[in-house]
Amino acid sequence: MTHASPLLTPDEALAVAALYADYADALDEGRWADWPGFFTADGVYRLQARENHERGLPLATLALEGQGMLLDRVGAVSGTLFHHPYWQRHVVGAPRVRARHDDGRITAQASVLVVRTPRDGMPEVLVVGRYLDQLVSTPEGWRFARRELIFDNDLLPNSVIYPL
Amino acid sequence: MTHASPLLTPDEALAVAALYADYADALDEGRWADWPGFFTADGVYRLQARENHERGLPLATLALEGQGMLLDRVGAVSGTLFHHPYWQRHVVGAPRVRARHDDGRITAQASVLVVRTPRDGMPEVLVVGRYLDQLVSTPEGWRFARRELIFDNDLLPNSVIYPL
Amino acid sequence: MTHASPLLTPDEALAVAALYADYADALDEGRWADWPGFFTADGVYRLQARENHERGLPLATLALEGQGMLLDRVGAVSGTLFHHPYWQRHVVGAPRVRARHDDGRITAQASVLVVRTPRDGMPEVLVVGRYLDQLVSTPEGWRFARRELIFDNDLLPNSVIYPL
Repeated sequence: MTHASPLLTPDEALAVAALYADYADALDEGRWADWPGFFTADGVYRLQARENHERGLPLATLALEGQGMLLDRVGAVSGTLFHHPYWQRHVVGAPRVRARHDDGRITAQASVLVVRTPRDGMPEVLVVGRYLDQLVSTPEGWRFARRELIFDNDLLPNSVIYPL
Repeated sequence: MTHASPLLTPDEALAVAALYADYADALDEGRWADWPGFFTADGVYRLQARENHERGLPLATLALEGQGMLLDRVGAVSGTLFHHPYWQRHVVGAPRVRARHDDGRITAQASVLVVRTPRDGMPEVLVVGRYLDQLVSTPEGWRFARRELIFDNDLLPNSVIYPL
Repeated sequence: MTHASPLLTPDEALAVAALYADYADALDEGRWADWPGFFTADGVYRLQARENHERGLPLATLALEGQGMLLDRVGAVSGTLFHHPYWQRHVVGAPRVRARHDDGRITAQASVLVVRTPRDGMPEVLVVGRYLDQLVSTPEGWRFARRELIFDNDLLPNSVIYPL
């Protein structure tokens, strides 16, 4: 439980930490077009309430699978940008690798807090929860085969527009 | 002040970081029974307001010493779970090792923010402060000989039930 | 985009992470006199709203250059301490090195959330944003040649007194 993970080499651990930080930076800087590139070709992105997750219910707030759906989402986000502008900022805890599978995939997780700041408004906690991830190593670096954000706050503010 | 700590080997630094992350994960996932296992047999856990800490006053909001008291607390928490359910989420900064003592103990600290989310409610900052820790290496890995959470917010919400 | 940074050696990466953590700790512990020491002799410290930053506008909430101005600020802070006491707590994300320049300077950034807690009050988000930094290695360790905090919340609470 409290041993250091020997599941990754130090270089791999640095690369995984970099992936987590780069993902957050891309979103916080509004580089939506970069977002699908963090996922594999058939990568899955899900946003699910913790209560549903813990009960094993399939219902998700958002579920996207594959580059096509991710790109569609980017288009929708860019199209709504004019109407509801706000800044977001991720604060992500240290990623923890939980398992390394025979096919090389890695199961990892990290706590996450996202703060939203409306223009001319005060910051508020938009989402708090954790990422549950499946990572694969590709020739271009580590990518998410699956990224789920399980959020504690069942009452999501009604304007989650941008990817988290 | 701003030198990298040579107090730990890279492997030890990773192990300490893992301990901090695992501790937070266990609590955020509600695995209360795992909590005492992060401490040594006579480990101390304290929750103290910053004002009292800085004045050197002994008064603590909670002070537990040894596995027996920690286990008692787990029992109490489990018993009250039904009445006041809420999720909690730790966001913990990078741990900093401040000293390594002749007996091998390590003095370390980290900033911490805990967000509480009531079921069907919005997230709120429950506690903000820092951990002040004494760590020892055991055959089972690093353990807390002493973990203090010094919290900035003297007005703790009145329903801190779960360990922090 | 998602490769581990080969820009720093592992030792350098640890030293940079330590600098970020030590800077935050010094401020959170109110050690104002230590603050200028994190900067080079002609170091620059700026606090700027994100909107101005993204539009390329020069207007900054605070702009200090060189040890003299930094020390002046420390004097002002210490003088106002009696009037508006509050605790602050930084939660800083993992620093990411973006570039290493020919002269050895490093460009790095990290997300940051600062929580303010008035005495006898509840914690509130004071600032959320990111640090944009220029670091140089000196005989005394890494120092900030330039540290900018670009904050998302254009409406800063009116009592930002302490350095961030």
